[in-house]
Amino acid sequence: MKPNLYRYMDTHNAKFAVGIDIGGTNTVLGLVSADGQVPARRHLPTQEYDNSGKYIRDLIAEIRELTHGVGTTALDGIGIGAPNADFHNGCIGKDTANLLMKDEIPLKREIEAALGVPVTVSNDANAAAYGEYVYGAAKGMRHFILFTLGTGVGSGIVVDGRLVHGHTGKAGELGHCILVPGGRLCSCGRRGCLEMYASARGICMTYREIREQTHDRGALSGIPDNELTCKMIGDAANAGDPAAVAAYAQTGSWLGLAMANAATFSAPQAIIVTGGPAQAGDVLLAPARASFERNLLMVYRDEVQILPSQLPGNDAAVLGAAALVRC
Amino acid sequence: MKPNLYRYMDTHNAKFAVGIDIGGTNTVLGLVSADGQVPARRHLPTQEYDNSGKYIRDLIAEIRELTHGVGTTALDGIGIGAPNADFHNGCIGKDTANLLMKDEIPLKREIEAALGVPVTVSNDANAAAYGEYVYGAAKGMRHFILFTLGTGVGSGIVVDGRLVHGHTGKAGELGHCILVPGGRLCSCGRRGCLEMYASARGICMTYREIREQTHDRGALSGIPDNELTCKMIGDAANAGDPAAVAAYAQTGSWLGLAMANAATFSAPQAIIVTGGPAQAGDVLLAPARASFERNLLMVYRDEVQILPSQLPGNDAAVLGAAALVRC
Repeated sequence: MKPNLYRYMDTHNAKFAVGIDIGGTNTVLGLVSADGQVPARRHLPTQEYDNSGKYIRDLIAEIRELTHGVGTTALDGIGIGAPNADFHNGCIGKDTANLLMKDEIPLKREIEAALGVPVTVSNDANAAAYGEYVYGAAKGMRHFILFTLGTGVGSGIVVDGRLVHGHTGKAGELGHCILVPGGRLCSCGRRGCLEMYASARGICMTYREIREQTHDRGALSGIPDNELTCKMIGDAANAGDPAAVAAYAQTGSWLGLAMANAATFSAPQAIIVTGGPAQAGDVLLAPARASFERNLLMVYRDEVQILPSQLPGNDAAVLGAAALVRC
Repeated sequence: MKPNLYRYMDTHNAKFAVGIDIGGTNTVLGLVSADGQVPARRHLPTQEYDNSGKYIRDLIAEIRELTHGVGTTALDGIGIGAPNADFHNGCIGKDTANLLMKDEIPLKREIEAALGVPVTVSNDANAAAYGEYVYGAAKGMRHFILFTLGTGVGSGIVVDGRLVHGHTGKAGELGHCILVPGGRLCSCGRRGCLEMYASARGICMTYREIREQTHDRGALSGIPDNELTCKMIGDAANAGDPAAVAAYAQTGSWLGLAMANAATFSAPQAIIVTGGPAQAGDVLLAPARASFERNLLMVYRDEVQILPSQLPGNDAAVLGAAALVRC
């Protein structure tokens, strides 16, 4: 790999960033060039760590390995996207869901001390948004909002070309806007959050409600509730299965309403949708756009585009993390 | 007045701003000192103008009169708060509701050309927000949101110490977040906007619904529907009338939910409530705070204050407009 890397540097004459995506199962590190290429990657099994000291030491060793060919002096910085991350203090907070490490994880302080390279930490949805800004669908846009659909619903908001972090560093939790007062019980303890309608889980719930109400005998009728996945429903919808199409249409309708509400906040140029459920494509985005237009305040009409992500799926999280270096 | 003004300048040794609040009935101009005093005011009857040319000429003459004692060279700038104003182009848009002038009103261009003083134009709710930032309840806060309750519901959002104007210059329309899907028909043509619940009109509607359902025989029972005002209901609520208290409690409950949703966007340090209905005080703010806490995502708990305006009611709009000079 090293000889390739050197060739890459010669060709591009560019500095690099390291992007680190910390997930509950895996930590992925990527060396990212100024034009968004990822010439080298490494991994660390997050789930095998139960204290932050050893995790950070191993992470620093992996960064050294990753940048061995170019040296840390060739780095503009290191960006880290993680759940429950605090931009202001550079830590992952205590008791983060899906992490075995329950202590605070002082990523910025420790890595900067060890490597002498500036480190920027933010939550994964903010990283995804900034990734679209630097490398993807939002290039050149000063105002946009990103929704990332997955197990939950995250969001990242860019105003005047800058990520909105807010007073506490925890802005952009649009997945927990209450969309349906008194609606579905959310894992946050409240009812009716967008997350319970537009996440993978929410789509499965909607599909199950529809097949119950309609006694559907379609493509997925043989699959028990607890084995259904959002991916299966998306594939069935794209194959034309009526109950699956209806579930995505209903999801798009809720998502479009949430987008129209978000538009009243920052009058964005675009709203970008990414994450697993969004990969179903137009079965979600067409009804989302229709609902968005229906629910949009007149003054924003024809001013806001609804766009899919333009980052390559495999590298999106690492590119997002690397983009944080520029924020 | 002139001798007083000169004394004022001697004492404060400060530069001035002109704040102009353009309403449908009246235009109010104020000379505003750096510490938020308003030593001189003038007025112009907006409702008597049906074309922008004469209106702008007269407005410029009034600015000259207002600043006669200090001279325009003593001005940091001129700030204008107006309905349907566009921060980016400095105009009031065409066909603005409540204005007889139906053409575009190029305030910034014309006034700057005539007086050689920088002019900043924004909508009245943004001006109110920036007024709290410079002179009022939000001094020193980098992130806050203001709701202004009146005939409608406006909002102004400050992120990182800067007003959010958005791509089109029309950000911050939280009065048109859809709070109750399928709810009351709004003048914007959609259903369930916050404005239909938390405006003066909304409060009157809620009160009428309650007195109809409960066959209320309280303080306002002799007053026909079309003569009821929000002020009457607020006074009755403060005097302990049960139906009026219930109407404000219900309004506060809706407002608190809208505030909790807004907090997920920018994680503000405070949410400020201003305008006529807010002057009822704790009959509105206490249930709003309770609903806010109930509906707030856990990560923001104890991080966001709900505050009343700290600008003097009579001068709030002029101070807000003058504050725009600093944005």
